[in-house]
This record gives sequence, structure tokens and C-alpha cells, in this order.
Amino acid sequence: MATKKKQATGKKNSGVVKVALLGFGTVGSSVAKVLAESKFPGIVLTHVYNRSVARKRESAAAKYVPVTAKWTENIDDVLKSDVDVVVELMGGLNPVEGWLKKALSAGKHVVTANKQLIAYRGVALQKIAAQHGVQLVYGAAVAGGVPVIPGILQGLSGDRVARLSGIVNGTCNYILSRMETGAEYATVLKDAQQLGYAEANPSADVDGYDARAKLCILSRIALHAELNPDEVATQTISTVEAIDFVYAKELNCTIRQVSRAQVDGTVVHARVAPMLIPLSSPMAWSHGTQNMVVTSGSYGGDVVFSGHGAGGEPTAVAVVSDLLAVAQGAKAVELPVRKRQVTGEFLAPHYLRFVVDDKPGIVSSIAGALAKVGANIDSLLQKPGFPKHRLPFVVTTEPCLTSVIEKAMGAISKLDCMLEKPLTLQILVPEDKSE
Amino acid sequence: MATKKKQATGKKNSGVVKVALLGFGTVGSSVAKVLAESKFPGIVLTHVYNRSVARKRESAAAKYVPVTAKWTENIDDVLKSDVDVVVELMGGLNPVEGWLKKALSAGKHVVTANKQLIAYRGVALQKIAAQHGVQLVYGAAVAGGVPVIPGILQGLSGDRVARLSGIVNGTCNYILSRMETGAEYATVLKDAQQLGYAEANPSADVDGYDARAKLCILSRIALHAELNPDEVATQTISTVEAIDFVYAKELNCTIRQVSRAQVDGTVVHARVAPMLIPLSSPMAWSHGTQNMVVTSGSYGGDVVFSGHGAGGEPTAVAVVSDLLAVAQGAKAVELPVRKRQVTGEFLAPHYLRFVVDDKPGIVSSIAGALAKVGANIDSLLQKPGFPKHRLPFVVTTEPCLTSVIEKAMGAISKLDCMLEKPLTLQILVPEDKSE
Repeated sequence: MATKKKQATGKKNSGVVKVALLGFGTVGSSVAKVLAESKFPGIVLTHVYNRSVARKRESAAAKYVPVTAKWTENIDDVLKSDVDVVVELMGGLNPVEGWLKKALSAGKHVVTANKQLIAYRGVALQKIAAQHGVQLVYGAAVAGGVPVIPGILQGLSGDRVARLSGIVNGTCNYILSRMETGAEYATVLKDAQQLGYAEANPSADVDGYDARAKLCILSRIALHAELNPDEVATQTISTVEAIDFVYAKELNCTIRQVSRAQVDGTVVHARVAPMLIPLSSPMAWSHGTQNMVVTSGSYGGDVVFSGHGAGGEPTAVAVVSDLLAVAQGAKAVELPVRKRQVTGEFLAPHYLRFVVDDKPGIVSSIAGALAKVGANIDSLLQKPGFPKHRLPFVVTTEPCLTSVIEKAMGAISKLDCMLEKPLTLQILVPEDKSE
Repeated sequence: MATKKKQATGKKNSGVVKVALLGFGTVGSSVAKVLAESKFPGIVLTHVYNRSVARKRESAAAKYVPVTAKWTENIDDVLKSDVDVVVELMGGLNPVEGWLKKALSAGKHVVTANKQLIAYRGVALQKIAAQHGVQLVYGAAVAGGVPVIPGILQGLSGDRVARLSGIVNGTCNYILSRMETGAEYATVLKDAQQLGYAEANPSADVDGYDARAKLCILSRIALHAELNPDEVATQTISTVEAIDFVYAKELNCTIRQVSRAQVDGTVVHARVAPMLIPLSSPMAWSHGTQNMVVTSGSYGGDVVFSGHGAGGEPTAVAVVSDLLAVAQGAKAVELPVRKRQVTGEFLAPHYLRFVVDDKPGIVSSIAGALAKVGANIDSLLQKPGFPKHRLPFVVTTEPCLTSVIEKAMGAISKLDCMLEKPLTLQILVPEDKSE
């Protein structure tokens, strides 16, 4: 037990915790900066691994790396060293997964910001960590500088969280909150790419794969449900148009990429999609690249976490906080996690937007298709000022199942008058228990 | 070291953690309920201390207490027992402080929701806990079910938090958010008292003493600054009138009881007062009894925590989460805290509301008094429709020091035409670093 304790605090070597950084990009260099400026006693950066070390050593941020640290392009220099903590900031599964397994097996703690790795391999890696009496911590994997993961793990372990929803992809939030002011998707995406908020290939962000990984991590810690990320339904934000924000506003809503999950017995309902959010809901507060997570507990009701989800320094705060925890032997509460089936089904009102070549009978056809599946129309919105030959209009439904709406929309999209594939968005309904 | 480890996990007796509840009121009975329903393995409620045990045992909530638990009116039954964790939910300094000192000294962990105790005696109690290798945790002392304390301790330890502001008193927030819709203070206070949100003597809430204790706790963990609660300036909300919300709205603001603190070298600026909050600020999101805390870090920017700050079950979530942490030996990061001088001075724009018997020269007198101290007028607002003999109007100033404004207002309040003491409110200016 004494040995385990010794390892658990991260201080094998006379009170000093030796730290290796894997990756010296935006976040890695910010971590070096925070460590250099804050000088937490007993934490020493001893290794920096990166490709093209020569180039990195000439970067402005290299001044934050102690002169005593070893820069290397050879991962074995880290894995075979006596470092106590490996901080992984490279992302992706390969080759990082293999490296971190080796690190954990060699008795090194791991701090990582790698959401894909933790979403797909977190449980397996945690087992290896436990076997070797070390910690695997990943507070930076979701919502960067917003302490959602430590807040849930430590502060909500006593609740039964049955639902959670979040805005966890800053790129999508930037794009959609810009579109709120009238801009079109393509324009804003281009701006986002120029500002460095979006990749040249934006698919991981706009199609929901980044958010899906984060949703799975949140489900694991808040709902104690282990989901297969590949089974979580996603819907791209790239089909949302400026006109949708006009109609959303009519409905006192805005549109955001929402990641939501809800426990229902042994099944978890989960979905990453652009959704209508009431302007009165906390979820509508997030602008720009901000992140927000709302958990709903049986006992504590809704809890909101919000802040800067991305960027070098906010993410470095999460990484360094994790590093301090490992260095001090601080640990979070652990509760059992169960593998759960996933479904994309939600019972919710829906927003349906059509662009048609207007002719008599269109509304009747749409209403008929909806009636056929038992979906009730709640409202029909048609803004004036659009040409009849390219008319956008909106139908909202009363709560009905996703699959039911999709069936009706499959039929409706085949109507001759449809000029584009209709857009189906779930409308988020706040459900916090009353005060 | 093995002994310390054994104590640190809270499990002295074959994997079972014995828990005593001090206080079986709203929060205490909710803790019993959560424990009974959630059945966390290894946690057993063995003692319930309260006055009038006979009455408590007949309450509906008594069914959540295991039949094996001992109910007692004698604190020694707890202090001299083999319980591992004492959960204190009684509040106040006396006699609780002495009891908890004894409990810690006897090697018992303490979980408490007692904000006054932690604000005034937290550092001293923490020392006793450390000396005896046990934990003192108080996640429920601020913002009930909102994991602000664990979120800051665990997730923001890597940042340098220089400022924080919060809405941490649900009673004041209920009163002021109701007044936002036109009601007068006295009416809303009465409602709050009937709903159980306010005490018969509401002073601790409305005059800011409750919030002040919480602000001191937040300053300790976020700013690493130890303040004397008695030195923190407070201002009552009871002098805010319905008309102030009308003028606040003109300024795109609302009014909330704000607790704020800001580090400036070795001095901490701290104040609990009703303040004008821009409607665009996260601080304006909190309605009803909700709580909100915003921390501002040098690296991570603004982080918002929000949710149900009070009530039995939300507070029980924090208590039970702390209990799980103690039971599992989970600990938070600890950083050094320093004693700091406090000042109530802030450099801020101010809102000044006057009620006058209108005569020529009043504005000139006010402007003169402000000019004399070097305070610049930013705007003058006068809503139509009020009688000249009882005219409320408002002056806002450019940023100036609290003491400077107070000096001018001292002179102004002596003017003959003043029908009531003028109201001075600080205007909160959002300062989050740009994205």
C-alpha cells in the first residue's frame, strides 16, 4: 500500500514531478508558458517530444521550456526515461494510443486532452492505469478551460444525472452564432477558416464527429454510461441556412449544434445535431467559440458550465490543473460505468423547413404526409417577401419521435415541388424542475 | 505513510464508511434521502444528531434513515463513537465549531455546508484536519448544488484567477428578479417569507452577510486570498426600489446582489452590494433562487457556473458528493493561501438615483458636487410621468472610485430638495478577454 501511495502522488523522485510534453503546438506551448510563469513548486518540464524539433525550438514559445529539458523526435526518449507524467497533446488514436499504453504500463501518469482517444479507448486505458497504480486524467478533453469534467466528477457524483446537453464544438458555435446575424454558412465557414477556428477540411467539426466524442466522454462521467461513439447519430450543420435563423427567431429560438444524451433504463438516447434552442434557455447564451454544458440531475436540477472551450491557454488551464492533481496525488471520485445501447430517437417537437416552387396543394401534401405518421402540426410560418418560385417556409410539429418525422420527411422530400432537401431540426425544450 | 493512507480514504472499518448526520432539517433529511435511494456501496448512516429527536423521528423523512442508525440529542454519542465522517448541517459558529474541532482531532473526516464556519474558521479547521490526517470538505457551503467549489479547486487550479463575481444568495436573487417585473421590495419580501425563501428576520440575506461569507470562501479557493469577512463592505438590497429597475432597463441593465472580489497585488477589492448588471452579461441570466459564479482567469478567461444554489436536494448533492470523495479518499488540489487586506474600493461607473422635490438648480447642485470630486457625468435619465414634487431621476457617472462617489453623495444627500437618501449602485462592466 505504501508503494501504491508513493506512485499515486506522482512524486517518485524526492518531491519533484518530472513532466514530458508530447506535442508542442498551440496547447503544448501554452502549457509550457503556464508552467514557466506559475512556477508550481515540484513540477519540472523535462522532455518535449515533437516532430521537427529544430523548427519548434526556434518558435517564440520555446523560451518557456527550461534549458535543462530534452527536446526529442524519438518517443522512446520519453517512454524509457524516468518522467513521472506524460502530457499528451497530439490528438488522434494512432500512434498515441500505443505510446500511452506503454507509458501507463511503465508506471507513468498520463494527462491528455485527446477526446477521440478517451471516447474510444478511455475505459481500456483506465484499466491499464489502475493495474499500474497510476492516473489517467483528461479534464482538457471536453470544453477546454471550462471545468466540466472535474465539476461533474467531483461535484455531481452525489446526484443522478439523467440528461445532459452541451455546446461543445467551438467551431460550430462560432459559425452558427455568426449566422444568427444574417450571414450565410459558406461565408462564415471561410471566415472561420481564416481565423483558425475551422480546419481546411471542416468535416470533423461541422458534421459532428468532434462533438460526438465529447458527448461520449460526458455520458461516461455524468450518466455512467459507456457509449460507442460510432453509434451516436450525428447531423451536419452545413445544411442550415440564414433563412433558418429568421424562422427560428419567429419561434423565439436560435440554432446551435447541440450534443445531447438522456438515460432511459438501459438505453441512452444520444444525438449531435443543429437544433432549435429557445432564447430563454441557458443554451442560447453561448456565443462565438464559447462552450456550454448543462447537466440535469434528479436531485440538483440543471447545472450550467460555460466558458472558453478551446484555444491554447484555456485548454492549458485544464491540462495544468490535471497535472497539479496528479502531482499532489489528488483524485476524483470513481463510480461504476456500464456499457449502454444507443438510439438517436428523441420525443421532441420538430422544425421542418421546405424550399418549394409554390403551387396549390403543397401544404396539403405535407400535412397529409405528417398526418399519415401521426405527427401533429403545431404551426406554419411563411415570411413575406420571397419569390413564389423559390419559397422557403416552415412547419413545426408537436412532440413526436425522430424516426416518425424522418419517415414523413422521406416521403415529403420526393414531392415534385421540393427544390432542396427539406431540413429537419429538433426543437430543444427546457425541462428543469421548477424552483 | 500506510496509516495516513488508511485514514485518508475514510474506510477504517473493513471497507465501510460510517456517517453521522448533525442536523436533520431540510438539507439533513435530503442527504438521508439521497443516501437511501442511491445506495452507494460502503457508505452507512449510523448516527443522526438533532434536538427534539422524538419529533424528528416522526417526520416523513425519517423513513430514509436506516433502522440501525442511532438517533441522539447528545453530541457525545457522535463524537465518542467510531463514525468515520461527521456531516454537519446545523450552521453557525457556536456550538458547532467546538464539536467539529473535537471530531477532527478524533480522526473523523468532516463534511459541512456551514458557510459562516468555513468563512471565519476554515483555515484553522483545515490545519487541525491536516494534523490528524483527515479531510475537511465544504462543497455545499457555496452555491448548494452548483459545483463551484470542486470546479474551482480541481479544474481551475492551473489558472491565475484574478477576479470573481457571483450571485450567491438565492433570497436576494429571488427578490430582485421579481422586482424586475415591477413589484416593490416590501411586497416581494413578504412573498419570499411566505414561500420559505426568506427568514422572518431577513437581514443576513438582504444586508449581505450570508453572501459575504460565501465571497470569502470563494476568494480563498479561487484567489488564494484569506479575507476577514467582517472587513468586507456590504450594502443592503432593501433600499432598491421598483423605479430603479425601470431606469436600469433604460441602461440595458438589471439589478442583482453581486458579490465580487478582485486581487490587486497584496490587496483584495471586495464588496457585496446590489449592482447594475448589463443584460448582455452572464450575471443577468440568473433568475429566481438560482446562483451563479463567474471566475476570470488570466489564462482561461471567464468561466460561468450556474444552477440551483439552495434547497434541500441541490445542497444534498454537494454534501453527498463530498461524502463520496471522502469515502474514496479522493482529494482536491491544495494551493497556498495568503492573508490579504481588504478594501471596498472599486473603480467603476456608478448609478445614482435621487428622489427630489423638483426645483430649479438641482441638477446644477448635483453636477457641482460630482465635479468637485472629479467624477464625470455619463448620462442623466428622467422618465416622464412623475409628479414634480416627488421626482425620481438618475445620474450615471464614468468610472470613478467608490470612496470618491461616496464623498460626493454625502454632500448631495444634504441638499434640501432630497426627499430620500439617494441610492448609489456600482455598474458592473464585463471584462472577459476577447476571443
